[in-house]
Amino acid sequence: MKSYRKELWFHIPTRRAFVNITPEVDEALRESGVVEGICLVNAMHITASVFINDDESGLHQDYEDWLEDLAPHAPISRYRHNRTGEDNGDAHLKRQVMGREVVVAVTNGRLDFGPWEQIFYGEFDGGRRKRVLVKIIGE
Amino acid sequence: MKSYRKELWFHIPTRRAFVNITPEVDEALRESGVVEGICLVNAMHITASVFINDDESGLHQDYEDWLEDLAPHAPISRYRHNRTGEDNGDAHLKRQVMGREVVVAVTNGRLDFGPWEQIFYGEFDGGRRKRVLVKIIGE
Amino acid sequence: MKSYRKELWFHIPTRRAFVNITPEVDEALRESGVVEGICLVNAMHITASVFINDDESGLHQDYEDWLEDLAPHAPISRYRHNRTGEDNGDAHLKRQVMGREVVVAVTNGRLDFGPWEQIFYGEFDGGRRKRVLVKIIGE
Repeated sequence: MKSYRKELWFHIPTRRAFVNITPEVDEALRESGVVEGICLVNAMHITASVFINDDESGLHQDYEDWLEDLAPHAPISRYRHNRTGEDNGDAHLKRQVMGREVVVAVTNGRLDFGPWEQIFYGEFDGGRRKRVLVKIIGE
Repeated sequence: MKSYRKELWFHIPTRRAFVNITPEVDEALRESGVVEGICLVNAMHITASVFINDDESGLHQDYEDWLEDLAPHAPISRYRHNRTGEDNGDAHLKRQVMGREVVVAVTNGRLDFGPWEQIFYGEFDGGRRKRVLVKIIGE
Repeated sequence: MKSYRKELWFHIPTRRAFVNITPEVDEALRESGVVEGICLVNAMHITASVFINDDESGLHQDYEDWLEDLAPHAPISRYRHNRTGEDNGDAHLKRQVMGREVVVAVTNGRLDFGPWEQIFYGEFDGGRRKRVLVKIIGE
């Protein structure tokens, strides 16, 4: 069995953003040499997500509005978590809706995707360096 | 290491539905010959889900009502995504709540399930042919 | 390829609770002898979750309040599922928001975590014995 590990680093200047990381995951898969197996991609931080959906800017704005409606950032006093001095209580909730990780099949050396699947990093508490882990196992 | 790949095809005539696909995943597992490993089952389309829960029709109606409350289909003008000519903005949101994929342990040649676990395909934008991917790795 | 399976048992006296199970998963990983691979941790029951987030009590209370707002327990008549004689319709919905499972990379014999990642069992319908499955594959 082969295994391969790579960290992807991000510094999102805004509080929230969605970044298409499919090219970086593709590159990690090429580097791994794995032809058949699976590829785990997960946020290493608990106020960020990795998810698969469409690379369409209107949809991303819909996600932004919807998540802000489900778990508003302000007033920050609405979250007990923020009594610790943080202001990111909302980010911990938004991340649960969008998910921590995706697991993608690897077939014939490629990410085994449907027609529109793209992998995104979802940042909900930006302004600092954060990481995504890519772990590929197979042969 | 063994690996096995199979596509399951669906054509749901209604916009939304939940379909128990456990028998089809069981059959794929038998075909794979894998005895110990893991089984990834994911929607290949971004307006559909694969999830594990109970095969109880009242619960499925509860999911339908709840998801429609969290992310209503109409008016379709409420989603920027629909400006592209689509009317499925809501489906992209509902799918995030229910999830893209499940990963199931394979033990002694069987899906290693608790007492009530069943795998469902969740369709949120039906009326056309769509696919689920089953990828099994192990030995 | 090595594989290892372990069940973790819980009896939560209250209806809802979050329990940090990272030490138990760490122990299972040591027992497995797996150095490179992946670790699946999933609820075996459909009214419970396994998820990764912060071990901070204020945040857990925020999750409790937020989930109760998204899918209230009472009145139990609001869920068709409860017509079966159950009173846990809400628990099936809450579990979808928080998720069934996590997949964690195993690197150098350790759970490959970011700085704050901890694994939690989320109980939404306690008062009886329930299980989590840990399945580790790799070498």
